[in-house]
Amino acid sequence: MAITVVGSVGLDSVETPFGAVTDALGGAVSYFALAASHYDQVNVVAVVGDDFPQEYRQQLGARRIRLEGMQIVAGETFRWGGRYHIDMNSRDTLYTRLGVFADFAPSIPQAYDGADLVFLANIQPDLQLDVLRQAGDGAKLRALDTMNLWIDIARDSLTEVMRRVDVVIIAEEEARQYTGEASLRQAVRRILSLGPTRLVVKQGSYGALLFDADGDFFAAPAYPLDEVRDPTGAGDSFAGGFLGYLSQRLREGHSLTTGDYRRALVHGNIMGSFACEDFSVRRLLALTPDEVTQRYQEFVRFTHFEGSWRDGERTV
Amino acid sequence: MAITVVGSVGLDSVETPFGAVTDALGGAVSYFALAASHYDQVNVVAVVGDDFPQEYRQQLGARRIRLEGMQIVAGETFRWGGRYHIDMNSRDTLYTRLGVFADFAPSIPQAYDGADLVFLANIQPDLQLDVLRQAGDGAKLRALDTMNLWIDIARDSLTEVMRRVDVVIIAEEEARQYTGEASLRQAVRRILSLGPTRLVVKQGSYGALLFDADGDFFAAPAYPLDEVRDPTGAGDSFAGGFLGYLSQRLREGHSLTTGDYRRALVHGNIMGSFACEDFSVRRLLALTPDEVTQRYQEFVRFTHFEGSWRDGERTV
Repeated sequence: MAITVVGSVGLDSVETPFGAVTDALGGAVSYFALAASHYDQVNVVAVVGDDFPQEYRQQLGARRIRLEGMQIVAGETFRWGGRYHIDMNSRDTLYTRLGVFADFAPSIPQAYDGADLVFLANIQPDLQLDVLRQAGDGAKLRALDTMNLWIDIARDSLTEVMRRVDVVIIAEEEARQYTGEASLRQAVRRILSLGPTRLVVKQGSYGALLFDADGDFFAAPAYPLDEVRDPTGAGDSFAGGFLGYLSQRLREGHSLTTGDYRRALVHGNIMGSFACEDFSVRRLLALTPDEVTQRYQEFVRFTHFEGSWRDGERTV
Repeated sequence: MAITVVGSVGLDSVETPFGAVTDALGGAVSYFALAASHYDQVNVVAVVGDDFPQEYRQQLGARRIRLEGMQIVAGETFRWGGRYHIDMNSRDTLYTRLGVFADFAPSIPQAYDGADLVFLANIQPDLQLDVLRQAGDGAKLRALDTMNLWIDIARDSLTEVMRRVDVVIIAEEEARQYTGEASLRQAVRRILSLGPTRLVVKQGSYGALLFDADGDFFAAPAYPLDEVRDPTGAGDSFAGGFLGYLSQRLREGHSLTTGDYRRALVHGNIMGSFACEDFSVRRLLALTPDEVTQRYQEFVRFTHFEGSWRDGERTV
């Protein structure tokens, strides 16, 4: 029943070859929560300044998203500015202003008790540990995301959080960076040996891979978008689709199977693809259940091939 | 009945973090022919110098590979030297010595008449056109590969060949370079509008995409290798698996369906993955039919997910 997510809510100013936005709703938690709320209820743990627009609060609150854990503190909301290059695969950070996020001390309201999943979005690993102490024991599934900065400056704490979660979600280059292994398979083994039962490797515009500790492996290509307008938040939306689907399955009374995890990875790719179609969280806000179902069916069609390569005569 | 392939046969000196080889059997045609010969007969059109080792000739000739069209000319065989970086995703060319390849004038022996497929490996587009004039009309399927160099210096000729083939096989960055489109989907539409019915986009270690002129789309992830020892020739081996499988289907009396093309793409990925497991063409030479079948079945397992995301209860 519900996912508790902790991380950043912020105001993003982004330029891409397709346009620009100023102080738009951003931050890992905003993307994650809006994506995951298509599947289940999301409980937000975050901090914003007293300048945070009421409009954005209403956009989040109008979904299955609880905001009791979103603290409002006197000061400036976290702000990030970035500019994407023409190929959209790289970007420059123009500024990062932490504001009230600098002193963020996550506190999980009692109203969030009973959440099945806890997602530790990309924040300082010691804060992730603190959230696990507050809410980890009651959850059926704990997952984390991270970034190159924490691998560089908070490696030991990050390792400690990895030991305590069930699922690690990480970008391919970060998996290599964290382990120092050139071989992705070796990197995967190293991370799984810490304790997580599953590892999700994000490959940006190429899709995602899912490894489990028993050796099962699943690969899902990315949805081929006609136009990537703004890739900001794609990874957080991916996590929202992935964990949102798992949370839905738990809510419906299922035990999570290998098949559930595979379908969850596809939902992650779907939500990541939607996020890129417009600036900020616009596309996730406009998204309908039918569009999600339709894109899932497209995924089925464009990844299917016959299992028997000598005899298979059916057309696909 | 058979594939005629035209392109380079050469001697490669390659260094990777896993070792090095000197004057090993290389060139697009060697990789392509050895991969495709697992499925059907291959007719080679190439040129080598009088220094070309008899041992390599025997290695090729011992397979279903005909060498009547491999001219031997006084002089030095084409040589290439390269060194891979630690991450294996980029390499430096140390030298290229064209030797007798500089004056290559492809000539297709009468013995090759009746080949169902013609593959124009990566050579100067005017030579590709010349081969099409000699052998294209009799074939059921014409395919080409190319590279950034020809997009830069022989763009018009390349466009002319693209207009005359059925299948274009191209790396993702080359598709963008050729069309000047940042959006891959736009680039695909531009290339298909020239006339080919199918376009294969190679994504290196991420897999491959297949687009057809009717709008069908298929994506296959790459086989996740434990260790990439030498990626040289992976793209040519990919083409060999892809076209080899199609040739086998034609030989067995089938008309090529969408399903055949999809399975062919998986066979391309399989052959590309095998090629990376050892230096030069060693792994392709050692490969058994059972290993190909086994890897195909692995592909089926690690790409499968349930088509119904709300009701699917079967375990995968």
